[in-house]
Amino acid sequence: MRIGELSRRTGVSVPTIKYYVREGLLPAGQLTSPNQASYEETHVRRLRLIRALLDVGGLTVAGVRAVVAAVDDEERPLHNIMGEAAERLAPRYDSTREKDAAGDEPAEEPPPSLVAARAKVAELIARRGWHTEPEAPQSEALAFALAALEDAGHGGFAELVDDYADAAERVAHADLDWVAHNVVREELVESVVIGTVMGDAVFSAIRRMAHVDASDRLFGTER
Amino acid sequence: MRIGELSRRTGVSVPTIKYYVREGLLPAGQLTSPNQASYEETHVRRLRLIRALLDVGGLTVAGVRAVVAAVDDEERPLHNIMGEAAERLAPRYDSTREKDAAGDEPAEEPPPSLVAARAKVAELIARRGWHTEPEAPQSEALAFALAALEDAGHGGFAELVDDYADAAERVAHADLDWVAHNVVREELVESVVIGTVMGDAVFSAIRRMAHVDASDRLFGTER
Repeated sequence: MRIGELSRRTGVSVPTIKYYVREGLLPAGQLTSPNQASYEETHVRRLRLIRALLDVGGLTVAGVRAVVAAVDDEERPLHNIMGEAAERLAPRYDSTREKDAAGDEPAEEPPPSLVAARAKVAELIARRGWHTEPEAPQSEALAFALAALEDAGHGGFAELVDDYADAAERVAHADLDWVAHNVVREELVESVVIGTVMGDAVFSAIRRMAHVDASDRLFGTER
Repeated sequence: MRIGELSRRTGVSVPTIKYYVREGLLPAGQLTSPNQASYEETHVRRLRLIRALLDVGGLTVAGVRAVVAAVDDEERPLHNIMGEAAERLAPRYDSTREKDAAGDEPAEEPPPSLVAARAKVAELIARRGWHTEPEAPQSEALAFALAALEDAGHGGFAELVDDYADAAERVAHADLDWVAHNVVREELVESVVIGTVMGDAVFSAIRRMAHVDASDRLFGTER
């Protein structure tokens, strides 16, 4: 199909499609003449993946580029793809504070709150018997969140990690079971990547819905 | 304390502190002379909240401004604060596609995938008997995530919403129980706001840790 039809099929404008090609998110079409390229169904699908990651997953263009590179990497071993996706798609925080818009320089030593949070994460992993490394990006992401809560004066929130871990195990088993039973091999990597990223958005929304419900039941009579 | 001490106590540079004051995130200090202001412990705490929301919560400066305004709103009724936080802190998607960097114009009609996703969300709410509105921002956020998954060719993921809802109920009850038993009234709003935002970051990290564990148990022997 021509670029105009690709645009109509996906609701993405022609300039935006060209922008995604320039940015390396979308493969270029097959040139059929010096000024015209032809696009396939794979482009339709990829464009919808890009929009999902940008619009709902909240990824940056650079983040989407990394994700589609992972999807396209045919060398990737399939046996541990969910674990790899977890590591590659974990938010990464510098072990020192990153420069911000106003020009902060990073500190040199990890603050005590981060040291303590890393110990809590290692304890959680040991307590659950999880096959996961305390130094992996997802474990570091948890340590950063707990350290930030401590620094903000809400360190007590860390008492909830086992409740969160129970819930996360439930979701992770459902995710993996779904991948194992419902996904054909050719779509495995894409399914895992999009499930990892979009599952966050799904859970965040459902958690807020459950908050409203639980809050209404607990406090609703006071109205 | 002077601004230099506030900076040392929080690890946030003086120019950044001034930037947060200009942007309305942090109240100005009390002027003690025309060129000097004095800061309190409340400024230390607020600065750490701002950094947590920016660095780990992933909020924008505008998002942080909305959150601190909610924290500072003393008129806010306390009886349903978690529900309000859920609504105010839900990601908001336009019901039509927003303009993106490349200049897309929004479409006029909601696409069929969004209409179908809204129906699925209403069914979920009915099935769970949740006291929450299908039109509320958090319900819309879920509908957008499901529609994006459908558009990207992964609509089957929606089969997992009840597993996610089970897990979300578990987390929501833990969140509310913690707030009800561990938080003094003066800190209630701040605790709920930070718990809502930071709980997403905590769950996202723990879910990835659980993915690695579950994937290793399921597929690890193939290595």
